[in-house]
Amino acid sequence: MKTAKQWDLKRQAKIAKMAKIAPMLNGKYISSDNIVSALEALINPGDRVVLEGDNQKQASFLSQKLLEVDTAKVNNLHMIMPSVSRPEHLTIFEKGIAKKLDFSYAGAQSLRISQMIEDQVVQLGDIHTYLELYGRLFIDLIPNVVLVAADKADREGNLYTGFNTEETPTIIESAAFKDGIVIVQVNEMVDQLPRIDIPASWVDAIVVADEPYALEALFTRDPKAITEIQILMAMMAIRGIYERHQVQSLNHGIGFNTAAIELLLPTYGEQLGLKGKIAKHWALNPHPTMIPAIESGWVESIHSFGGEVGMENYIRARPDIFFTGSDGSMRSNRAMCQVAGQYAVDMFIGSSLQIDKEGNSSTVTLGRLSGFGGAPNMGHDPGGRRHSTPAWLDLAGKDELAKGRKIVVQMVETYGANKKPVIVDRLDAIEVKKQAGLDIVPIMIYGDDTTHLVTEEGIAYLYKTEGLEERRAAIAAVAGVTPIGDNVDEAKVRDLRDKGIVALPEDLQVARTEAKRSLLAAHSIEDLVQWSDGLYVPPAKFRSWS
Amino acid sequence: MKTAKQWDLKRQAKIAKMAKIAPMLNGKYISSDNIVSALEALINPGDRVVLEGDNQKQASFLSQKLLEVDTAKVNNLHMIMPSVSRPEHLTIFEKGIAKKLDFSYAGAQSLRISQMIEDQVVQLGDIHTYLELYGRLFIDLIPNVVLVAADKADREGNLYTGFNTEETPTIIESAAFKDGIVIVQVNEMVDQLPRIDIPASWVDAIVVADEPYALEALFTRDPKAITEIQILMAMMAIRGIYERHQVQSLNHGIGFNTAAIELLLPTYGEQLGLKGKIAKHWALNPHPTMIPAIESGWVESIHSFGGEVGMENYIRARPDIFFTGSDGSMRSNRAMCQVAGQYAVDMFIGSSLQIDKEGNSSTVTLGRLSGFGGAPNMGHDPGGRRHSTPAWLDLAGKDELAKGRKIVVQMVETYGANKKPVIVDRLDAIEVKKQAGLDIVPIMIYGDDTTHLVTEEGIAYLYKTEGLEERRAAIAAVAGVTPIGDNVDEAKVRDLRDKGIVALPEDLQVARTEAKRSLLAAHSIEDLVQWSDGLYVPPAKFRSWS
Repeated sequence: MKTAKQWDLKRQAKIAKMAKIAPMLNGKYISSDNIVSALEALINPGDRVVLEGDNQKQASFLSQKLLEVDTAKVNNLHMIMPSVSRPEHLTIFEKGIAKKLDFSYAGAQSLRISQMIEDQVVQLGDIHTYLELYGRLFIDLIPNVVLVAADKADREGNLYTGFNTEETPTIIESAAFKDGIVIVQVNEMVDQLPRIDIPASWVDAIVVADEPYALEALFTRDPKAITEIQILMAMMAIRGIYERHQVQSLNHGIGFNTAAIELLLPTYGEQLGLKGKIAKHWALNPHPTMIPAIESGWVESIHSFGGEVGMENYIRARPDIFFTGSDGSMRSNRAMCQVAGQYAVDMFIGSSLQIDKEGNSSTVTLGRLSGFGGAPNMGHDPGGRRHSTPAWLDLAGKDELAKGRKIVVQMVETYGANKKPVIVDRLDAIEVKKQAGLDIVPIMIYGDDTTHLVTEEGIAYLYKTEGLEERRAAIAAVAGVTPIGDNVDEAKVRDLRDKGIVALPEDLQVARTEAKRSLLAAHSIEDLVQWSDGLYVPPAKFRSWS
Repeated sequence: MKTAKQWDLKRQAKIAKMAKIAPMLNGKYISSDNIVSALEALINPGDRVVLEGDNQKQASFLSQKLLEVDTAKVNNLHMIMPSVSRPEHLTIFEKGIAKKLDFSYAGAQSLRISQMIEDQVVQLGDIHTYLELYGRLFIDLIPNVVLVAADKADREGNLYTGFNTEETPTIIESAAFKDGIVIVQVNEMVDQLPRIDIPASWVDAIVVADEPYALEALFTRDPKAITEIQILMAMMAIRGIYERHQVQSLNHGIGFNTAAIELLLPTYGEQLGLKGKIAKHWALNPHPTMIPAIESGWVESIHSFGGEVGMENYIRARPDIFFTGSDGSMRSNRAMCQVAGQYAVDMFIGSSLQIDKEGNSSTVTLGRLSGFGGAPNMGHDPGGRRHSTPAWLDLAGKDELAKGRKIVVQMVETYGANKKPVIVDRLDAIEVKKQAGLDIVPIMIYGDDTTHLVTEEGIAYLYKTEGLEERRAAIAAVAGVTPIGDNVDEAKVRDLRDKGIVALPEDLQVARTEAKRSLLAAHSIEDLVQWSDGLYVPPAKFRSWS
């Protein structure tokens, strides 16, 4: 039956909201004095609101101002945040401004978020990988209002997001094209933008923030802190995975393990004659520890999820490597880089806080609900992939219809910094599921998605194992003196080595004695600056000189 | 070792190319008389060139002009085409203008492409799903030049892509931010765009085409052609899948099977009391056969890959349902809709030309290399998904770490239109792999990704089967009088029905006698127009009246 229905309710609601702030608007601009009143007018109780909340960039002025709204006017919001990063991201729940939360990642806030869910202050929607959260913005989490950050806007309201474009265009698109309201904080208004990243017609209201948006140098690792154990593991990974499978395109996550690999490419990798053969194309944030490999001619291209503080000038001077706009500054794009990281690269390699005896890993530990970010999206074999590369085919099965497989590596020391075993019998995540009332156990990377496990003991080639028992044995063989590794049968390990399922350093011709810090292409942040000819400008906290 | 290196070779190459066409440029505009000379100046031999080539929209003026270049100047191109749709897309290979091809889909050209690969006229890079091809544009297939189509441009060169935005922004981004050259054909230049979809600073050269870009009404299915067998299958799917698993978000592919479902929602679905309970959120092209379900209040939202000819006014009048811009016209986005279709929906349901006895399906048949499009991306369980919905959880396993599963349905009549069995012992694709020298057999949807198989005989709940033998038996049970279905043991079928692995119409309380065309909410294109209050304006070839 055809129903008599009004078909533009969302548009009418938007028009009504915008009419309320008309007196405050100068073009699309609202003064920072009026922004709290504007938020009160533009956000209805129960609205779905995206607060940016990215991995790096934070719409920190808007999040602080959201905290100041009259809770009689704005309450019970359903917040959608890619990254829950700042105290006020959770304080809005304590004040009753917000009620329900869908998110992807909660780094610094992982302890508090866990407690607030248990205390039912936060009603948890779900935990997502970035890409599935973006997808839902177009399906069943279409927002009413989005609060985002840009670097600059011009008088008409066009936006420049530059280096830290990240997911801003994706978030804005979900609202701008579904009669949602797009509110943007900018660091400054200018007459002429370097380039336009987002057109003015996608934007409803702009406020020049009292201070620039918050930005964290999340992907900067000081080479000083890289240990010889990490160097040993990095050498094994290069020989036993990168070289063996001819890995040409890849993602590196955050962390010292992969920073060590980056700093060994121009030394150890070069000795092995691998330059030009491996690690050419990257889906990667602009890690400062990549500078020596780039300068040595290892890298053909890098597409980035976000920017990295201090790398601006360096990137601008290396357009053959990085994605830059017509103005010369970088363009990042988290959604497209996640698509590329899922579908277009040979390998994902990452770390975890706990790995169980079957290879399931999680960064969720007791009392700490850190979320997933992008790792699960890149850390599995994408079932929709149909194109071939040498690395992908190298892991193919043998039957007639077999296809290749993505290389998914977990790289961990068997004991963590807190002296607790990383390889465990049972993940804390199982307990967290109960405490937080989750539908499923929050696993980061599943054991059957993991193709290789690298520890300081060796590499377990999990993709070669047949059945769960053999997988367990392979993991135990590299589990060191953890409870999982303790009962290992030496004859079994010998057998797994003979079958090529486990490789110890000597099986890979990696000499433990060579695993020295002197092998790193840079030993300090200062060295990285030097490699970059002074183009890399590290944030103050990473500078030991001045 | 730090290498002495120039870091802006690509930018310098672009500057040199652009200098050559400077005399032809009026702002960013090139006259259509000069476009062939401009292409000769802007494209170097061997360049990687994206030619759009979408599912619907074709940069047909540019593809015709590319055919006219002097092959002494432009040759051996590496073409990247989401969709190989037009004769000249392949003729450029015969003329030596192009040499290598990476693509996703080849509908109308599937026979010719197959022959040209066999004859080594086309050197095949690989066949992709859409999303992995887009991903590679940022990793290892970064283009030198992109040739795309937009509806309108203003004097500065801002673009309006409107309804058929499709993958244009994604293709342009890969070139505009990596010193590639962006050449756009537009239907017209205007003083004021309805809205800006792509900023001028992303664009290098614009030509007003001699005629509007080609656009095919790919997703229009005339209800007249829907058969009673298709209606029976649709009834089974609604009862046995949509209702049973509470499918709330979904994609429908092209084809009469799913068109029948769309037209049964407001009749049969309504009788079952399912309105508001299922099929609320869609990742879907704007199928005309969705109009009765929309008008009856079934649909909350539709995000679209592309537009559909004739649906423009209807969409404009239904902004609560469709994604539209500030100007009121639709915005589609294939990349984001594929992300949503992969990660944010409960179900993918599609058809195929052949399905083997283990459930592997392919649209590639002997002599016909049709490619994949987006089906493999949506037709598998995405390993990176972490959020839950009732449907997803309904397919979860039982062990402690189990997660949910995406519903992937193949829906076929056991005999195709050509009187050949659809369910076969061995896929033609295996032979095609050899003929075309592919690395893997071109499977559309793998058997172990398929959760349900619907035929006119019944539904096989493949996700419930344990082991390959039981899966084979379940498929055989619904395979009808094909060679696979012929030897079915009745007792075995009884057993599978008892276990809930196979359901016949009577098991689902679906009466074959009710499967009549009278049950369809619309019986003709004219009915659809009527449902839409005249807002839907079908293309001439679908009109039997006038």
